[in-house]
Amino acid sequence: MKAKTPSDSRTTMTDLVLPSETNPLNNLFGGELLARMDRAASIAARRHSRRVCVTASVNHVAFNRAVPLGSVVTVEATISRAFKSSMEIFIDVWIEDRESGNRTKANEAIYTFVAVDETGRPIEVAPVVPETDLEKERFAAALRRKQLSLVLAGKMKPHEATELKALFD
Amino acid sequence: MKAKTPSDSRTTMTDLVLPSETNPLNNLFGGELLARMDRAASIAARRHSRRVCVTASVNHVAFNRAVPLGSVVTVEATISRAFKSSMEIFIDVWIEDRESGNRTKANEAIYTFVAVDETGRPIEVAPVVPETDLEKERFAAALRRKQLSLVLAGKMKPHEATELKALFD
Amino acid sequence: MKAKTPSDSRTTMTDLVLPSETNPLNNLFGGELLARMDRAASIAARRHSRRVCVTASVNHVAFNRAVPLGSVVTVEATISRAFKSSMEIFIDVWIEDRESGNRTKANEAIYTFVAVDETGRPIEVAPVVPETDLEKERFAAALRRKQLSLVLAGKMKPHEATELKALFD
Amino acid sequence: MKAKTPSDSRTTMTDLVLPSETNPLNNLFGGELLARMDRAASIAARRHSRRVCVTASVNHVAFNRAVPLGSVVTVEATISRAFKSSMEIFIDVWIEDRESGNRTKANEAIYTFVAVDETGRPIEVAPVVPETDLEKERFAAALRRKQLSLVLAGKMKPHEATELKALFD
Amino acid sequence: MKAKTPSDSRTTMTDLVLPSETNPLNNLFGGELLARMDRAASIAARRHSRRVCVTASVNHVAFNRAVPLGSVVTVEATISRAFKSSMEIFIDVWIEDRESGNRTKANEAIYTFVAVDETGRPIEVAPVVPETDLEKERFAAALRRKQLSLVLAGKMKPHEATELKALFD
Amino acid sequence: MKAKTPSDSRTTMTDLVLPSETNPLNNLFGGELLARMDRAASIAARRHSRRVCVTASVNHVAFNRAVPLGSVVTVEATISRAFKSSMEIFIDVWIEDRESGNRTKANEAIYTFVAVDETGRPIEVAPVVPETDLEKERFAAALRRKQLSLVLAGKMKPHEATELKALFD
Repeated sequence: MKAKTPSDSRTTMTDLVLPSETNPLNNLFGGELLARMDRAASIAARRHSRRVCVTASVNHVAFNRAVPLGSVVTVEATISRAFKSSMEIFIDVWIEDRESGNRTKANEAIYTFVAVDETGRPIEVAPVVPETDLEKERFAAALRRKQLSLVLAGKMKPHEATELKALFD
Repeated sequence: MKAKTPSDSRTTMTDLVLPSETNPLNNLFGGELLARMDRAASIAARRHSRRVCVTASVNHVAFNRAVPLGSVVTVEATISRAFKSSMEIFIDVWIEDRESGNRTKANEAIYTFVAVDETGRPIEVAPVVPETDLEKERFAAALRRKQLSLVLAGKMKPHEATELKALFD
Repeated sequence: MKAKTPSDSRTTMTDLVLPSETNPLNNLFGGELLARMDRAASIAARRHSRRVCVTASVNHVAFNRAVPLGSVVTVEATISRAFKSSMEIFIDVWIEDRESGNRTKANEAIYTFVAVDETGRPIEVAPVVPETDLEKERFAAALRRKQLSLVLAGKMKPHEATELKALFD
Repeated sequence: MKAKTPSDSRTTMTDLVLPSETNPLNNLFGGELLARMDRAASIAARRHSRRVCVTASVNHVAFNRAVPLGSVVTVEATISRAFKSSMEIFIDVWIEDRESGNRTKANEAIYTFVAVDETGRPIEVAPVVPETDLEKERFAAALRRKQLSLVLAGKMKPHEATELKALFD
Repeated sequence: MKAKTPSDSRTTMTDLVLPSETNPLNNLFGGELLARMDRAASIAARRHSRRVCVTASVNHVAFNRAVPLGSVVTVEATISRAFKSSMEIFIDVWIEDRESGNRTKANEAIYTFVAVDETGRPIEVAPVVPETDLEKERFAAALRRKQLSLVLAGKMKPHEATELKALFD
Repeated sequence: MKAKTPSDSRTTMTDLVLPSETNPLNNLFGGELLARMDRAASIAARRHSRRVCVTASVNHVAFNRAVPLGSVVTVEATISRAFKSSMEIFIDVWIEDRESGNRTKANEAIYTFVAVDETGRPIEVAPVVPETDLEKERFAAALRRKQLSLVLAGKMKPHEATELKALFD
């Protein structure tokens, strides 16, 4: 299967924060942001694999900055690495200042999707070839995150998680 | 005020069509698409003007193709021309085929927004300098559309609408 | 096919503006109003044609007055003219003052719908016979709007648009 | 305070049943219908009283017929009687057949609203003068329903509920 | 059919009040609360009957206390009595104080559901055996409410409503 | 500050899966489930701390089983451990079979919340005293997860993460 770059499937979802999407503090409600990230990530996974993709896990989401009502929010989803049928999608969330137009990073998240065939069984996807420095760094870290996930789920023995183990040596 | 190009404020909103957004024929509900286009266009207007912007009118929306449930839809909003405080925003709507990844134009629309100051009064915005051929063509047509709008609203006499009148000579 | 009057299919949708339907300025969000008008207009088109109807275009929407949170809004959709399988629907939007009960016109819009058969192909609808002065005026103007639409879409030559051309002579 | 007729404040809300408003059987979800009736009834109460009105109780709702996806539903709210600061609102729900245009009664409901002043305290509203036979019948029955409500809530002794008691004699 | 206790099917739905669920006074919108109660009650009916259940009527809802934005609301639905194929569901709504954690009763409601078979026809359900004092009291009152409902609907003659008639003797 | 048990703040949110909450495969949309879990977890955090709580991160969500349209879903949120001002909330998601009433585990997730004072600054919360075996196991694992989080964020050196390091020895 022909490899693809992260930019081949990068997905940009720019939208407003409307009152119906806020929490009682007038910031974007966490659940709404999680839902937007899930939609953007599923599109990136589908663009990479050209298959139906389902959310397998949400590996990490850091809510670093509140996103106020009326903000312009950009959710950008990029595939960081593929493992047979699963894809790690890295999501960057930006808000922009109305007057200066400057963009600030508000949150980031990592989701995993699996490509499935018509019967719902996992099916292999194209490998990822990272191009930029950031893409290469995330590509490398994706393996450690995968091992970690397997260790925590009891599906890999810690001493087999070579990439991860190296961190603690 | 320093002129800006259409690409300075171009806004991309890629999203799925979920079941809650469909009509009884299982296609994207027209009202939902109108709402998405309004949000994307208002962001483009705000990026161009760095001001609060309000919808002044929807000038034309052509629903050429139904957008089926499960589609990936990209709404792209680009400013075509500015007139003092008003901005014409051109919106292109694309759907993409999951297997081939090919994009098809589904709809287009034209909205007009006005930039306002803190008291809600119209305020001048930067002029637009079109760059590509398509941008230049839309820039020119925007004047005809504006004259037409004024004539139909009875705010301009037909014989004063020089650009428009030329069409019928 | 037996002609019908505009009042045969007039559709009234009175509803509140709730917080989930507002923009950050606490007025009815433009996209939500576009959606309500689309629903009301599609009911009027269906009542006139007794067929499944789909939105073909939004020809003009003027947002003259903001509609504040808590308002009572009446969207009234009336068919203005039918052309074979297409119907022009005129929409008037009113808000009413709670204390005096007075109604004020807030917006108006023109949508076009097409009646389709079971296979999705356009099918002829009954002609419209306008009764009141306002209905007659809108009936006449509908032809000019249709010609204009065809000219702008490049489907009619300007000099063939006799009704429209007369405006500029 | 000058009396008003039921038709002075009658409220008509005609709308579609979209997929996002259905239950798993593809009929209008009961909760959505309850919400629409609440909105229509609150508008009727406000039109009668010209005051802020709050829902005091839902006295009875009969779901006689399922309302299928894609239906045109008309919710009509009419004041049946006023008691000092409270108003009984009778709601009739109709669906119409697309092909014949015939309307069928689907449900009916009775809600009670209270008019309040700026501090939230109940405030007197105009009396109701019923005109048609149906309005007169509902006006009379409203008193029995009010007594019943008081008896069931333990706020009136059964033998004082003269209207109601007559039923059982 | 083996009898069941109310606690066998009791359903607890604890949730927040978000901005999209409020009315213009910043309290939980009545229609949204009616919808939540309908969902909770339908789950309780389904747990009791192990069948598809549809809302037959809303018999009484008292809105005693407004539920402010940001509240934690618990909707608790409990079957009070079964009559052949119909089930009366009693719903208690509680809000809790954030600082003290104290729960206060905000509203209560009574809904009736009917269990249906695959063809939509009513089907018999298990009887209810009340255990606590409150459950016994509600069980007894359910019969009076049922008779009342039949009398008001003209389906039972008042003098046959023995339980109810006793109230007025 | 007086310690509390996990059951002191356990939060149960039982609800249906309605059509508006599904993905194109007719299963509960991932984003909607993430939002429900966020709401339930925030209530548990608030009940434990009696403070305003904000989502700090989503540490892990495993989507093991699809949740079909029409399901009864129970989201149960339980505090597993508190660290000064942050709280780890463990979320179990269950679906139940309509006919047998059996509950099956569908998903689980771990969220972290922070309690804040009026100015938005983190504020200390009560410690957690686990009671059951499952609570004790989750309490112990929470420390490893916290160290892992700090290591991955570069805020703790791997060799200081004693609990975590032990895994790899």
